[in-house]
Amino acid sequence: MTAPTWVRDLLPPKVAGPDLLAAERAGSVVDAAAIANMLYGPDVLAMRSRVEATLIAQHFDDKLEALPSLGRMHKIEQSLARGKSLKHLRKVHSWSPEEYSYSSTASGEMNVYGLHDKAFIKCLTDQTTDEQKAAFLVPAQQDKIIGCYAQTELSHGSNVRGLETTATWSPHDQTFVVHSPSLTASKWWIGTMGRTANHALVMAQLIVKGKNYGPHTFVVPIRDLATHEPLEGVYVGDIGPKFGYSSMDNGFALFNNVKIPYINMLARFQFVDPQTSEYKRRGSQALVYGGMTFLRVGIAADAATTLARAVTIAIRYAAIRQQFADEDSASQAETSVLNYSMVQYRLLPLIGTAYGLQFAAEGLRGLYGRYDSLLGGGDQAGAEALLAELHVQSCALKSHGTTISVEGIETARRACGGHGYSHYSGIGHLYSEMLPSVTYEGDNYMLTKQVARALIKGAKAKSAMFADYNPSAKFDFAKDVDIIKAYGHRVAFQTFQIIRLRDTGSTWNALLIPFWRLCTAYAQFIIVREFHDALARLPAAGVPTQTSAVLADLFRLHALTTFDNYASEFADAQAVPAALRDGVSRQKAIADLLSKIRPHAVNLMDGWAFSDLVLNSSLGRSDGKAYESMFRRAAANPVNTLTFDPRPESSVLIKSRQAVAKL
Amino acid sequence: MTAPTWVRDLLPPKVAGPDLLAAERAGSVVDAAAIANMLYGPDVLAMRSRVEATLIAQHFDDKLEALPSLGRMHKIEQSLARGKSLKHLRKVHSWSPEEYSYSSTASGEMNVYGLHDKAFIKCLTDQTTDEQKAAFLVPAQQDKIIGCYAQTELSHGSNVRGLETTATWSPHDQTFVVHSPSLTASKWWIGTMGRTANHALVMAQLIVKGKNYGPHTFVVPIRDLATHEPLEGVYVGDIGPKFGYSSMDNGFALFNNVKIPYINMLARFQFVDPQTSEYKRRGSQALVYGGMTFLRVGIAADAATTLARAVTIAIRYAAIRQQFADEDSASQAETSVLNYSMVQYRLLPLIGTAYGLQFAAEGLRGLYGRYDSLLGGGDQAGAEALLAELHVQSCALKSHGTTISVEGIETARRACGGHGYSHYSGIGHLYSEMLPSVTYEGDNYMLTKQVARALIKGAKAKSAMFADYNPSAKFDFAKDVDIIKAYGHRVAFQTFQIIRLRDTGSTWNALLIPFWRLCTAYAQFIIVREFHDALARLPAAGVPTQTSAVLADLFRLHALTTFDNYASEFADAQAVPAALRDGVSRQKAIADLLSKIRPHAVNLMDGWAFSDLVLNSSLGRSDGKAYESMFRRAAANPVNTLTFDPRPESSVLIKSRQAVAKL
Ligand SMILES: Cc1cc2nc3c(=O)[nH]c(=O)nc-3n(C[C@H](O)[C@H](O)[C@H](O)COP(=O)(O)OP(=O)(O)OC[C@H]3O[C@@H](n4cnc5c(N)ncnc54)[C@H](O)[C@@H]3O)c2cc1C
Ligand SMILES: Cc1cc2nc3c(=O)[nH]c(=O)nc-3n(C[C@H](O)[C@H](O)[C@H](O)COP(=O)(O)OP(=O)(O)OC[C@H]3O[C@@H](n4cnc5c(N)ncnc54)[C@H](O)[C@@H]3O)c2cc1C
Repeated sequence: MTAPTWVRDLLPPKVAGPDLLAAERAGSVVDAAAIANMLYGPDVLAMRSRVEATLIAQHFDDKLEALPSLGRMHKIEQSLARGKSLKHLRKVHSWSPEEYSYSSTASGEMNVYGLHDKAFIKCLTDQTTDEQKAAFLVPAQQDKIIGCYAQTELSHGSNVRGLETTATWSPHDQTFVVHSPSLTASKWWIGTMGRTANHALVMAQLIVKGKNYGPHTFVVPIRDLATHEPLEGVYVGDIGPKFGYSSMDNGFALFNNVKIPYINMLARFQFVDPQTSEYKRRGSQALVYGGMTFLRVGIAADAATTLARAVTIAIRYAAIRQQFADEDSASQAETSVLNYSMVQYRLLPLIGTAYGLQFAAEGLRGLYGRYDSLLGGGDQAGAEALLAELHVQSCALKSHGTTISVEGIETARRACGGHGYSHYSGIGHLYSEMLPSVTYEGDNYMLTKQVARALIKGAKAKSAMFADYNPSAKFDFAKDVDIIKAYGHRVAFQTFQIIRLRDTGSTWNALLIPFWRLCTAYAQFIIVREFHDALARLPAAGVPTQTSAVLADLFRLHALTTFDNYASEFADAQAVPAALRDGVSRQKAIADLLSKIRPHAVNLMDGWAFSDLVLNSSLGRSDGKAYESMFRRAAANPVNTLTFDPRPESSVLIKSRQAVAKL
Repeated sequence: MTAPTWVRDLLPPKVAGPDLLAAERAGSVVDAAAIANMLYGPDVLAMRSRVEATLIAQHFDDKLEALPSLGRMHKIEQSLARGKSLKHLRKVHSWSPEEYSYSSTASGEMNVYGLHDKAFIKCLTDQTTDEQKAAFLVPAQQDKIIGCYAQTELSHGSNVRGLETTATWSPHDQTFVVHSPSLTASKWWIGTMGRTANHALVMAQLIVKGKNYGPHTFVVPIRDLATHEPLEGVYVGDIGPKFGYSSMDNGFALFNNVKIPYINMLARFQFVDPQTSEYKRRGSQALVYGGMTFLRVGIAADAATTLARAVTIAIRYAAIRQQFADEDSASQAETSVLNYSMVQYRLLPLIGTAYGLQFAAEGLRGLYGRYDSLLGGGDQAGAEALLAELHVQSCALKSHGTTISVEGIETARRACGGHGYSHYSGIGHLYSEMLPSVTYEGDNYMLTKQVARALIKGAKAKSAMFADYNPSAKFDFAKDVDIIKAYGHRVAFQTFQIIRLRDTGSTWNALLIPFWRLCTAYAQFIIVREFHDALARLPAAGVPTQTSAVLADLFRLHALTTFDNYASEFADAQAVPAALRDGVSRQKAIADLLSKIRPHAVNLMDGWAFSDLVLNSSLGRSDGKAYESMFRRAAANPVNTLTFDPRPESSVLIKSRQAVAKL
């Protein structure tokens, strides 16, 4: 189908998109470039541009365009192709780990090497002896072996102790025998396992002389290095279609008494003495937890970035989407939907959420850095003390951060009206790919238990935030520090309340709901605290005063909307200032902040410096040419190659297939 | 890949799924069959079984299995094939409209004839003269012409008055000229238009003698009946990939001065006099609104059913999914996750939401019935009075009902842990297909404006719910009627508050947020009221006392959890009983209800009588064989036909393709 001349004459459309975005940018004092520098630093920004230029030179943008219309068979094949290209480019351009990692982010859905590059190599790095590093880590880094991380089973996920797969020590030939005693023991959900990996890190119950020592990790070859066929005794495959992640081959595997050599049990922290068959531990167990902490902070940071991508798109589109005239104005001209208070109420607080999450993740990274240098300096006790803090904060931030990120992404999508549902919005895809993060690396509800228990321990030990608790404290929200105090007050109140409930006979089971509320309250506290701390660092990071002032308003908007949404919990905790006791006054305060921030919405999101390649969105294009982009992409989409025979009585489905011309 | 013997020996797995479900069913006094009879009646249940048997005989279940792995090209082709089969079966089995409609529901994603069967025919039925019925409706009903409903444009959706497409009356040859003056005038999102339809009902600004009479509907031929190629002056195609609805060809269309005959303007309610070129109205304009009301009630009913499907799956799976032992118990045996208070808190209120929405939709259908018979009896004034009521209630229920349905579906999916993300859960797909209902047929936020305005009008006219308002009323939640009164009280309070805000200078724009809150409060009021009314009808509908008692508890759980979630709004309205003023006491009351309802969860959802064909879910199978089903489907999924070459340096992607054997 070639477009007739009269259609081509309508292009480019005479709409105000580009002008409107330009006006938004000119009308704000917020310095987007300064924010970008503060968030990433000039080196990272330069690195990103470099990698993106390479990807565009290799037509990765065109490949991205084709992706959403493909079925799983093609997607998974393309995913392998994309993965190979990136590994090739890494070699050619001598990419650093950061460059390679960014190339994967910028090239769309995670490719089939994803879990090899991340989980497999990370786990080998952390948990192997030097000898094992030579045997497994080095070939893995050179991609000579491709691996995955196989913990979850068909019937066990959260309860790792309940895994059924066994690895039985066989002293006579110094091997382990890996076995799946039942169908439900099948490994399941294992990324990169379905079609790609030839090795798996298998979590299995270690059995030595009839005794079960609990889950341990083993390197298990699963496919032949030459033929790539499953090895004898291994039944492995892809688990089928999913809500998203179609480019990933999440897999299953059953093992039938598979023998692996002694060296294949990861032995940095524990091992079986090959001579005596004794089970032994060595080194600091805390280190293992340190790694998991780092992973969770990484997920929280991803939650921030992904939310920010969705919000960037929605804000830009809301600035150029005009619908109805303002009823209060005399003008008949349609107004940008971003001028409607309801749209502002839906979108602007999300800008704050994204920044808040980002600052909180950065704050935790800083804490991790201190922990790491204490460890490096040999202060193991100091490191372990920090680790407890890191653990509870990272669990809370992962749990609550991914929850609000996913929710915010969907709010952003809906704010785009019908076009939000088009793939060309660039938002739906963010949602599907972010969604499983509420489940993996600790189901968000399971994590709340760990957080609550740690807080109860802290309260009983009278740690800082509990020692300071004064039930009759008063808060004045005109002072930012009081806002943070009120958030902390609520955490302490809820913790003490739970202790009282337990003391008066509540079962642990009944406490799960208060635990979840407490974890939420605690995560919200961390976010406002870290947001506030970050504000103090802005001048040093080169952010101009006027920009900082807007970010400070954003902090208040975030803190106040969250406060309003949880008003009855704050009320129970007696943490509500008299001036904000009823809804109308809280909403008045929020409305004032919305008006103050409205003019800066576009620039605040420009500050995240997402390129058009990364956004891959017609609605969120940096030049405002949303409609033109939608139209061109729609016209060229492959479904338009099909000419139907729509008559129900005809058995012909497709009368003809003709190429479509790009407009 | 054929599975080795040792794998086949693991089948069927020795897990408790079937036993656990059987025990749930035996352990509850709730009579699921009686509920099903009450919800649908025996005739509908028999009709559904009949249609499903026909579909299964035609292997529709196998076709459903293949669907999720397909790309858009194949999906759209399969969609046409599925649509043709259903139309063929309709003829062969002389299906009634209800049977045909159910066949579409039971056969998976909406097929490409969807908007022809629904919107096109419905609109022609409602808005045509007798002459037009002969010309368009009859051939449409016989599928001789295939149509779609084309209102939305690239740059206008909610603001229908802002549409750009024009239809200009040409008196000299008595035609209308349909024209798209710009690119953004392109029709967009039009279901069935992309590849299938040869006609469109086009909403366009009617221009007569230079005067714009606003949007009217015109029948516009768009593709040649013989060749199915676009007609001269029409540029039409599919709009590309979306978040869901991949089996539907939502389309775009531009018109270049396309001439259509006089008869093609839908003329039941308005027409251009062909002699004088005068614009004239006739008949009751109210009728047009009646149809839209009915449509919205239908969407709310769909929201209930779709939510119930997701909840059925999640409840059954939570009953058989065992993870961890109960910490309060001495036993080490793992327990069903449905026994955890947190899982109950997430899932059981959703059972109530589904029932509440269903009863509310039924209640509105009853109201519509009364309206219809008033009209039929010639009482136009009476009918129009009811219509106002129908309008506000249906807007509120559509807006809030679809919002909570979509939210509940996702909560149900998450409750299934990782497996919820698999397509085999059967939930993700419900989410993607339900999702756009928050946007179409009136964006949910836009509808809140209409509801609020109607309530303000009601308050000023002192209609019943406002006349009774007593600011200092007290509520005792031990009495169910007081619960409903408290919900009504909150609606009145918020309405009066808005009137006060407006009187003291609030702009309309600033009021959009309180409007949205008010609409939510009002919808929640309707749902609890209708739920409560339905309880009174249960004995007459043959529901046994013990079952009714559980449904009454479910009503209280629904009302109380909603109340708790909006506690600060109820507090502002002074509608909180003293005994429920703090969170702990509310949560205690909720916990008590959760425990009471827990034993009946499976039966309460069995009452909805969804067949395994309709659920299409491994996790929610009625026989509890979740794991076995997951495993068999995974093993047979087409991605397992591909053998990769995973070596990055190799340019080969797929080494071989081999059929996989079903297990
Ligand atoms: C896209 C994706 C990729 C993945 N990749 C990998 C991978 O590469 N490697 C790997 O090993 N795994 C992987 N997983 C698996 C993932 O780690 C698990 O799904 C996760 O750990 C949750 O476990 P589960 O699915 O068994 O849920 P379950 O533990 O069965 O939980 C089911 C439900 O019960 C609730 N529940 C369970 N126990 C309790 C309790 N005690 N109290 C209250 N509520 C409870 C949960 O909150 C949840 O709602 C992946 C999962 C997904 C979705
Ligand atoms: C799957 C799907 C199928 C569809 N099928 C059809 C079809 O067959 N035929 C057809 O004609 N159309 C169809 N539509 C289009 C649908 O009817 C529109 O998307 C819908 O009417 C919303 O309009 P919009 O997309 O233009 O949103 P907009 O009106 O542009 O709204 C964008 C955003 O601005 C907000 N907003 C707009 N105005 C205001 C205001 N005054 N105050 C406050 N907020 C405001 C909205 O809440 C929304 O968040 C379909 C859409 C979808 C997603």
